[in-house]
Amino acid sequence: MTKNTLFQYGTMQMLVEGLLEGTLPLSELLKHGNIGIGTGDGVDGELVILDGVGYKIDVSGPAVKLPEDFKVTYADVSFADYHKFKSYQNVELVEMLKDVLTKNNAQNQFFAILTKGVFKKIRTRSSKKSHKPYPSLEKIAENQVEFETENITGTMITYYTPPVFQGVGVSGFHNHFLADDLSFGGHVLAATMKGVVVSIQPIESFKLHLPVDNQEFLNANLTDISKLDNVISKSE
Amino acid sequence: MTKNTLFQYGTMQMLVEGLLEGTLPLSELLKHGNIGIGTGDGVDGELVILDGVGYKIDVSGPAVKLPEDFKVTYADVSFADYHKFKSYQNVELVEMLKDVLTKNNAQNQFFAILTKGVFKKIRTRSSKKSHKPYPSLEKIAENQVEFETENITGTMITYYTPPVFQGVGVSGFHNHFLADDLSFGGHVLAATMKGVVVSIQPIESFKLHLPVDNQEFLNANLTDISKLDNVISKSE
Repeated sequence: MTKNTLFQYGTMQMLVEGLLEGTLPLSELLKHGNIGIGTGDGVDGELVILDGVGYKIDVSGPAVKLPEDFKVTYADVSFADYHKFKSYQNVELVEMLKDVLTKNNAQNQFFAILTKGVFKKIRTRSSKKSHKPYPSLEKIAENQVEFETENITGTMITYYTPPVFQGVGVSGFHNHFLADDLSFGGHVLAATMKGVVVSIQPIESFKLHLPVDNQEFLNANLTDISKLDNVISKSE
Repeated sequence: MTKNTLFQYGTMQMLVEGLLEGTLPLSELLKHGNIGIGTGDGVDGELVILDGVGYKIDVSGPAVKLPEDFKVTYADVSFADYHKFKSYQNVELVEMLKDVLTKNNAQNQFFAILTKGVFKKIRTRSSKKSHKPYPSLEKIAENQVEFETENITGTMITYYTPPVFQGVGVSGFHNHFLADDLSFGGHVLAATMKGVVVSIQPIESFKLHLPVDNQEFLNANLTDISKLDNVISKSE
């Protein structure tokens, strides 16, 4: 089942509750997948893993290659085994992703989507690393920056998570982008495709590893799951 | 990571939404664990897996050994690797489980608990198999039976699931019992221990497999997660 397993480290609830410590070295994460998305210690940028290499897009803009000892707080990775689904031209991101999901009847399963080609317009977000004691999520949101560019060639990695997993992961679509020339990337907020090829990989198994050696995680009060509703939809 | 992985097949949401078809043969489930709990096709009884053998407690009362082709709808299994934690005498189930969880600071992780010994009093529930088209959960609840007995020797298998996984699994404690002589068992509603030994196994990874080959599951509308709040607490 390895090929079609989504491996997730940590939960979205952790981030919402300010448990931001990076506890998994990138080298360990890469044992569970060669493609993926995530964030680093103290919300240290937006991560993209492509062809087994980790990249970070932080507030400075361009992507940087990460060392193997880079500490990851939250990540979703898989072993790339996509097959081509369809080409799209001149379409909004949300419209395109909904079409992919609907045509594959995939709304109740985990689903990996890979979009490669020219993006006519794309707006992304990235974060600045925070240090202990970690500030509130509101403070962190203040330190986020947004980037926008046009006519850029690159790869967008998307994982779809069914609604019942809200708080465990990001329910719905979660997209990170990396430009081919590494000049641009981040957590995708909006985009318009110019001409892209979409490949898909249905996921059969979801494997979650929690930071069970981290005392702050073990000691946290994580009983109030109603807090997840607002924050997650805002952060998407 | 195999040893300390909880493998779950299906979600609680599926049961709530009436997706009751058994889609995984017991023989397949046993590849992922030799101890566990679950339910069968059409909520066909309460399952106990012990030492790699599957048992069903249905409305008739005693446990029966299951054939390998028995179809499972929902299950949690793991590979037993418990270590002794503590002996308990003359204590209520809920009090005992809370003590185990608190003393192990395990409220934020998946946690397996095994209780062996003499139960002074125990009340269990079991269900009657339904057939397609499956009735509503209310109708199924009407077909449930409760059993009660005293001074019985057996094994209780418990999985603790953190709150954020509500709807994915049964958040909190989920306990199934099997008497040593197979005369009694089921989903535990209440119990008082006479003298038992509790062993524990902290779980590091949670691996979920969804019935992605089942068209009814794929086609279902599973977007209303608010429905989970009531039904899950009622079914615990």
